[in-house]
Order: sequence, then structure tokens, then C-alpha cells
Amino acid sequence: MTPPQPIEPLLSLFILFVAAKLGEELFERLGQPALIGQIIAGFIVGPGLLRWVSPSPTISFMAEVGIIFLLFETGLKTQPEDVLEHGYISMAVGFFGVITPLAAGWAFAHAIGENAITARFVGTLLVATSIGITAKILSDFGAAQTAFGRVILGAAVLDDILGLLALSMLSSFSEAQSHWANLLLTVVFVSLFFIAVLFLRRTALPRIRGRLGRMRAAAPQWSFALVILLGFSAMSAYIGLAAIIGSFLAGMFVSESRELAEALSERAGAVSSFVVPFFLANIGLRLSPAVLTNAHALLLIAALTGIAAVTKLVACGLSALPLGRRSALLVGLGMIPRGEVGIVVADQSLRIAAIPASYYSIGIAMAALTSMLGPLLLRLVLRPQRPARPESGASAPAAYRDAKGQA
Amino acid sequence: MTPPQPIEPLLSLFILFVAAKLGEELFERLGQPALIGQIIAGFIVGPGLLRWVSPSPTISFMAEVGIIFLLFETGLKTQPEDVLEHGYISMAVGFFGVITPLAAGWAFAHAIGENAITARFVGTLLVATSIGITAKILSDFGAAQTAFGRVILGAAVLDDILGLLALSMLSSFSEAQSHWANLLLTVVFVSLFFIAVLFLRRTALPRIRGRLGRMRAAAPQWSFALVILLGFSAMSAYIGLAAIIGSFLAGMFVSESRELAEALSERAGAVSSFVVPFFLANIGLRLSPAVLTNAHALLLIAALTGIAAVTKLVACGLSALPLGRRSALLVGLGMIPRGEVGIVVADQSLRIAAIPASYYSIGIAMAALTSMLGPLLLRLVLRPQRPARPESGASAPAAYRDAKGQA
Repeated sequence: MTPPQPIEPLLSLFILFVAAKLGEELFERLGQPALIGQIIAGFIVGPGLLRWVSPSPTISFMAEVGIIFLLFETGLKTQPEDVLEHGYISMAVGFFGVITPLAAGWAFAHAIGENAITARFVGTLLVATSIGITAKILSDFGAAQTAFGRVILGAAVLDDILGLLALSMLSSFSEAQSHWANLLLTVVFVSLFFIAVLFLRRTALPRIRGRLGRMRAAAPQWSFALVILLGFSAMSAYIGLAAIIGSFLAGMFVSESRELAEALSERAGAVSSFVVPFFLANIGLRLSPAVLTNAHALLLIAALTGIAAVTKLVACGLSALPLGRRSALLVGLGMIPRGEVGIVVADQSLRIAAIPASYYSIGIAMAALTSMLGPLLLRLVLRPQRPARPESGASAPAAYRDAKGQA
Repeated sequence: MTPPQPIEPLLSLFILFVAAKLGEELFERLGQPALIGQIIAGFIVGPGLLRWVSPSPTISFMAEVGIIFLLFETGLKTQPEDVLEHGYISMAVGFFGVITPLAAGWAFAHAIGENAITARFVGTLLVATSIGITAKILSDFGAAQTAFGRVILGAAVLDDILGLLALSMLSSFSEAQSHWANLLLTVVFVSLFFIAVLFLRRTALPRIRGRLGRMRAAAPQWSFALVILLGFSAMSAYIGLAAIIGSFLAGMFVSESRELAEALSERAGAVSSFVVPFFLANIGLRLSPAVLTNAHALLLIAALTGIAAVTKLVACGLSALPLGRRSALLVGLGMIPRGEVGIVVADQSLRIAAIPASYYSIGIAMAALTSMLGPLLLRLVLRPQRPARPESGASAPAAYRDAKGQA
């Protein structure tokens, strides 16, 4: 009997989803960050251990939708004013958090005898903090509304942009083409994009809202939010940025009032519960077992993970000192996780002949390990303090409970 | 500059989503069924007219997720008791609604001189009413809770199953393999599946609910519903049925109380608003312009659409006469739309050498046209009556408003 739909994808999605949810539950019970449980769950059911699920285009696609909605949800909860409140600190954290690991990664690869292009690649690999993982951590810790949370998010958005500029330079060196015009164009577009988000939402949006209210199609406000999400994401990808930067801006754009942001967050949360586990589990799924049993590769992973953690911790922590020593430490730790842009950079390496193939899996492993290391270290600092004195803004336990109070 | 994500898919998804929403809005304003506006919107931006968007694996995948959530949402709103209330009528409508178009399609193809396998294929093509389109129509008309609505849904589930059995026989004839054992196995599995849905939900589910309440992972009830959705859909595809039959059963399974069904429906609705437009627009997108300009093919499409409409109208209408003449007419009209199973059958034809290639597009066109014809005719019967006397159950305008009252 011919199955009317391909069996593999649905069964794989089911196994991966159940594993991710079990991992989340287990880590919540152990008092550990839930996202680590989901990454490890992906590794366990994947080629690394049980081999029940293999990386596939379907899973990658669900993971992409997952990160788009994760960033959209984060944007919904972020008012641009909040990001700008500590704008100079965010910019300093973002900027020094980019050049320090870039330089350190390049110097390290150079020192161990890699060629010039590989050295540039290793530096680029270490540049960008994961907005997705960071957003998930801040939401899990109930810290998205705190001063250090806002600095981290602002800096993470900035360093994703810088990271993608660094990637475009890596590609231009390797392809021996000049991309400086494109680069300039990108910077101009990004600036216009931000200006649109900041100003149009106060002027054009209220008028659009009135018209939406008179629409007869189902759920007009939510549909409008989805149109903006898809449009900003597509535009962002089109001008050479990661789509997720557009997703984040879309979330900020459509949430011009707190009430609206809450109503939209609830709907976005329903989608996120479905798609975000695939994003997290997919990271674990892509860890190659072959690389994990190779001593040289393991050493490289350990070294790069160490460099990735220390450079962000020092550069970002020092830049955030105006917030106070404890918040500066939290910013430094919160900036450690690498993720989507690191994975994009690793993917890119497969197309550049001069870079050894093993660096792909090494890059993915570094991203996964820093994504676990960041929240583990954060937990050490945050936990003892949480019940006693929550950070500014909404009290941490309340926000924590709120994020979980759905259904 | 290397774009970090493929541009095409996101831009296509954006254009298709905006077009579908505009089509929905326009048809709502014209007082016409919104789903037709979305199908036509897909045709307009697709290869048929503007060529802005082409059918792609990404869009097909989103369309598949769309129909899975559409059926899940429909299942959530359907209590098994409601379907069983008119169980014998549903079974009669389903059964006679299958054999009549099967015989008529076969006889027609035979009469115009097609070979034996093509004749069987044409019959199979006409068998299955689209649960997806039907569910959307019933929800758009606020008629999901009416007697005729329940009969239609029950019959549509049954004839999808019978349609897929017919397809498996078509394949077995063409592949010259005996699939009777598989067929028997399928029937046994489907029966067990139904029994599980009907009985476990009253016995095992309440105990599971208690445990879910003590879970620490986010949104446990919604996550559990998603696990059931993915699990049932995967199982359904595995035993050779369409995944969507499992999606529908999953919705019925997890909604053991009205309050729970409402809370879950709201979350499912947030996902549906995002994914269902892709399912509808994709139908229009797949209409081949080449076939639509070929006179012979157009004649065949017209003839098959006519046979498809008349056979369901007569066979299902007569079977539903115990409900009264007006409801019987509504059942007959509501059963006209062909959709997902018809498309699956058309897909299958590409793998059978004996069937002319043009039948693929002819099949898709027939499905699209009957999907538009059904609701257009229904509207003629339903509209004059709607404000004056709504069908039994929730009043139609209230249910209608409710479905649109989101966001």
C-alpha cells in the first residue's frame, strides 16, 4: 500500500518533539536550563547516540520556522525604548564582543598552523552571540525585562549584524570578488530598517490598526502581525542579513502597546511551543558522532569553546561595567552562547575549499557547547539571588511563572 | 554578499500569505466563501497568471502543516458523540458517496476510450470528499455543530478512508502485487484507532491530565495536545492512511471537555491563521496554465467536475433524506468538494505509466473547481435562511462571529 505522505518526516518530527519535551521536563525538574535538556535530547535520539532521527530538510525547515518565531516572540516582548535605554552600553558590549573573539580566533588558528583563510574563518565562527539561545535563556530565567537582559539582547542583535558582515568579508576574500559596495548597501539598509521600526510604529501603525479593526477576514491583528513577520524576515534575508534579525524587528514593530504585545505574545507562544523545540533539538541532532570520537577534533572543540567563552566574558563583561559588577558578570555570561550565525558560518565553510571539512562539525559542536555553558554558568550566579532580590523590572519568579502559565 | 538563508522560500511565503489574506478579505466583503478567495489568490500570483510564486517543496510543506492543523482544529471542535449521533446516516452518505462517483468516473473514462487502468484511476480520483475544504466551509458558515454539518464530517472521514483503500487497489492492480493483506491490516488498524479515540479519552485521559498539571515544562496541556497530534498523524500515515485522518482523530481525542476544547482551539487557531492560508493558496498555485489552455483537457475537466458534483449531490443527498429534505440537500452540496485525497490520487498517477500525464493537472483542476463549486452552491441555499432560522446547536451567526473574534 502506497503511503499518501512520506512516513519519515512525520515520524521523525514526532520522536524529536517528544524527546525535546521530555528533555525540557527533566531539566526543569533538575533545576537546570530547559533549553539544554532539549539540545541534549536532540543529540540522544540523533546520529550521535540512538540514531532514531537523522538531520533532514524537513527538520531544518521546522527549526528555521522555530527560530523565526522565537525571535518574533522576543521582539514582541521588547520595546525599542528598552533597548535604547542602555544603548551605548549595548553598542560597546556588541562591538568589543565582536572584535575580541574575532582576533583571538584568528590568532589561535594562525598559531596552530592553519592557512590564512581558515584562520579568518575560525575568527568569524566565534563572533556572533546567538540571539535565539540568549532570548530563550532570558525568558527561562525571567530576565528579559531586566537591565542586563536588555543590554544582552541589544548587543546580540548588533553582533549578529557585525557577524554577518564579517562572514560577507570572509566570502569576498575567498571568492576574490569585491563586495564592499554590497557591504555599504547592507549597512544603509539596516539603518533604514531600524529607523522604520522606531518611527513608523508611532506614526503609521495607529492608523493601520483602525483600518484592521474594520476588516472582515479572520483574526486581522494577528494576520497583520504575521504579514509583518514574513515581510521583515524576507527583506532581512534579501539584504543579506539573517532572516531572524527581521523577525526580531517585526516583533518590536507590531507591539506598540503593552496590551497588544500581550495578546500577540499569547498567539505567538502557541506557535512557538510547536516549533521552537525543533530549533533546539536540531542543534544536538547535528553534532557529528565522527568528530566527537576524534582526539584532534575534540581538542580543537575544547580550545575554541574555551576561547569563545573567555573572550565574550571578558570583553562584554568589561564593556558592561557601568551597570555594576554583578550585572556586568551576567552580561558577560549571557553573551557566551553561539548559535544560528555560527551555524551559518560553519555551513559556509563547506563551500570554501581552503577550509578543512572537519571545521563544519567543530563549529556546530562549539555552538552547542557554548549554548549549554552560558546558561549553566548564569544559573550559578543567578540562582542563589533569585528568591532574595530579583533584578529590576518585573520580579523574576513572577515573570518565570508567567512564561510557563500557558494552557 | 552570501545570503545566510535561501531568499526564495521566505519571499514566496510572504507573497503567497499576503495574497491569500487579501483574497480572504475581498471574498468576505463580497459575501462569498473566504476559502475560494484564497484558492483564487494562489492561482493569480502563481504560474497561472502573474508568475510571482511557483510551487515549491517549502510551500507544499507549509500546505501540509496547514491541512494538519486545519483538521486538528476541526477535530477539537467535534465530539465523537456528535459524529456518532447520526452515525448510520454518515455511514450511508459516506458509502454511497464513494461507490457512485467511482462507478460513474470509471464508466465515463471507459466510454471515451481510455484504457482499463486509466478508467480505474478516473473513478478513484472522484471518490473522496475533502475533509479540509469541508471543515473550512462548515466553520466559515458557522455550521460545524449542526446536524448536517456533523453528518458531512463523519461521512468525509469515512470516504477519505474508503478513497485511500480504493487508491491502494489502483496501485495493486498497476503494480501487479497483491495488497489484500495490507488492506485488511489497514481496516483493522483504523478500527482500533477509532476505538482508542472513543474509549481511552474517557478512561486514561483524565488521569494523564492530572499528571500534566504537575509538569514543570512550559504549557503542558498544549504540548501534550501537540504530541498527540504528531503521534496520531505519523501513525495514520504509517498505516497507509492520509496523515490528516490522524490529525482529525487527535483533535477529537484531546478535547474531552468543552472548556479544554475551547482553550486548545484558541492555541490551534493561532497556528492555523499562519499555516492554513498556504494549504488553500497552494491548490490554486498548482493549477497548470498549460492544461487550462488545451481545449480537450478543458472539456475533460468540465465533464469530470460535473460528474463529481452530480454523483455526490445525488448519492449523498438521497442517503441523508432521513434528516429532512433541506438538510439532505445541504449534505449533498457539502460533500461536493474534492481535495487532499484527490490530489494524492493525481500525484500517484504520475507513477503509473499507463495513465496519460495530462490527468495529473486535470485531477488538480477538478479538485480546485469542486472546492469552489461546493461552497458557492451551499451559499445559495444557506444565505437566505441564515439570519431567520439558524440550524440546530449554536446559532450560526454567533458561531460565525466566534470563529472570527480572535485578536
